[in-house]
Amino acid sequence: MKPEIDIIAFDADDTLWVNEPFYQDAERKLEEVLRRYIDVEQITEDLYEVESKNLSLFGYGTKGFTISMIETAIELSVGKITAGEIQEIIEIGKRMMQNPIELLPGVRRALTELDQNVDLMLLTKGDLFDQESKIARSGLSHFFKYVEIVSEKDEPTYLGVFDKYHIKPARLLMVGNSLKSDILPIVGVGAHAVHIPCETTWVHEKMAEPLSRKQHFELGEIGELPRFVEETYQLERA
Amino acid sequence: MKPEIDIIAFDADDTLWVNEPFYQDAERKLEEVLRRYIDVEQITEDLYEVESKNLSLFGYGTKGFTISMIETAIELSVGKITAGEIQEIIEIGKRMMQNPIELLPGVRRALTELDQNVDLMLLTKGDLFDQESKIARSGLSHFFKYVEIVSEKDEPTYLGVFDKYHIKPARLLMVGNSLKSDILPIVGVGAHAVHIPCETTWVHEKMAEPLSRKQHFELGEIGELPRFVEETYQLERA
Repeated sequence: MKPEIDIIAFDADDTLWVNEPFYQDAERKLEEVLRRYIDVEQITEDLYEVESKNLSLFGYGTKGFTISMIETAIELSVGKITAGEIQEIIEIGKRMMQNPIELLPGVRRALTELDQNVDLMLLTKGDLFDQESKIARSGLSHFFKYVEIVSEKDEPTYLGVFDKYHIKPARLLMVGNSLKSDILPIVGVGAHAVHIPCETTWVHEKMAEPLSRKQHFELGEIGELPRFVEETYQLERA
Repeated sequence: MKPEIDIIAFDADDTLWVNEPFYQDAERKLEEVLRRYIDVEQITEDLYEVESKNLSLFGYGTKGFTISMIETAIELSVGKITAGEIQEIIEIGKRMMQNPIELLPGVRRALTELDQNVDLMLLTKGDLFDQESKIARSGLSHFFKYVEIVSEKDEPTYLGVFDKYHIKPARLLMVGNSLKSDILPIVGVGAHAVHIPCETTWVHEKMAEPLSRKQHFELGEIGELPRFVEETYQLERA
């Protein structure tokens, strides 16, 4: 017998729309600003180190990332970077906050099909203002019965959200690109999970140990989701 | 007959704990950094102008405020501020993110008394990560059955939150220090409101037109709230 599902929750960044490539693009632009001062090829490691140190104070999102870019620039230029160049870095951050949202291929069609038979939820981690702005710019908000933005995706957070909406974990399917955030804790609380890997994944989301494939499914792209869901689950509306 | 209430919602910043004075203190520290470059007495207006311009990109909170402080410094120093001084400004912001939370007088006692008879909610505007961190540091989180952090406090947002928890507006009392955010939209959606003014209110929260006092109550301090609630409402648990 197929398991009964009455809600499908989606991660947003790099599941529904392009995100990480914009961060990598910002990093390339930061390297251009810093070219006068340093001769390293890539600043990825330095920037990641500053970001990691700041994570417990800033959380995720572009505002914290912007401050981390500034700190990295001050550090790598040994304090020589000018105020004008720091303003350029701020502008890199501000442009990220206004980027048009680029949906991943097949997203709109998959949501349209699934929306006909089951309730959909957007369940994303990050900066509240950032994410609300991206959801608005994505043009997808009408698909989602519930939208939840959380500061961390771990088991207690998921349980808190499910409790809030009186959702039974066993009746929820989560879809996302991050094994660490979208799959492992979801399997941990007894919900269903579909992993759709993304070409570019932030190093912070990468896992040292791969998960056993037994507890979740993996699809190549979101376009396969409606058929997979139809074949695998019994859909109900709560 | 007294109106029946089954939930009391509290604003957080400058209602439960000190907030705005920390921003004003940061502003004084920014002035010290800028003293080498400018001879104005106060930078309040310049900083507020930069903040207001950035609000639609950053939303509320200390990370956006930190970037606005940096931009103000670059502007007022005509690009002369050094990287070292910008790092000092970043440190001012980081210290704000770690400040111990200073509860306003009578808060713990009022929550303890009210918690015995009615469900309490924390309903605050701001940066998600900032606010979660402050709630954790405040030591008050166990009082609240629900915690909601929103990016703006307007009528649609309040209605969305009430809908999420199946709360009838007429059965909710909101308590806060900002007429603009905590009182006016609450009265607008048909809920009850108690205004507890705070000595220091951010200019952004100030209203040009005072509200008519007929639709809400005003108390001098939160210590008066339990008695006021007892005399004015019939409390129930939902």
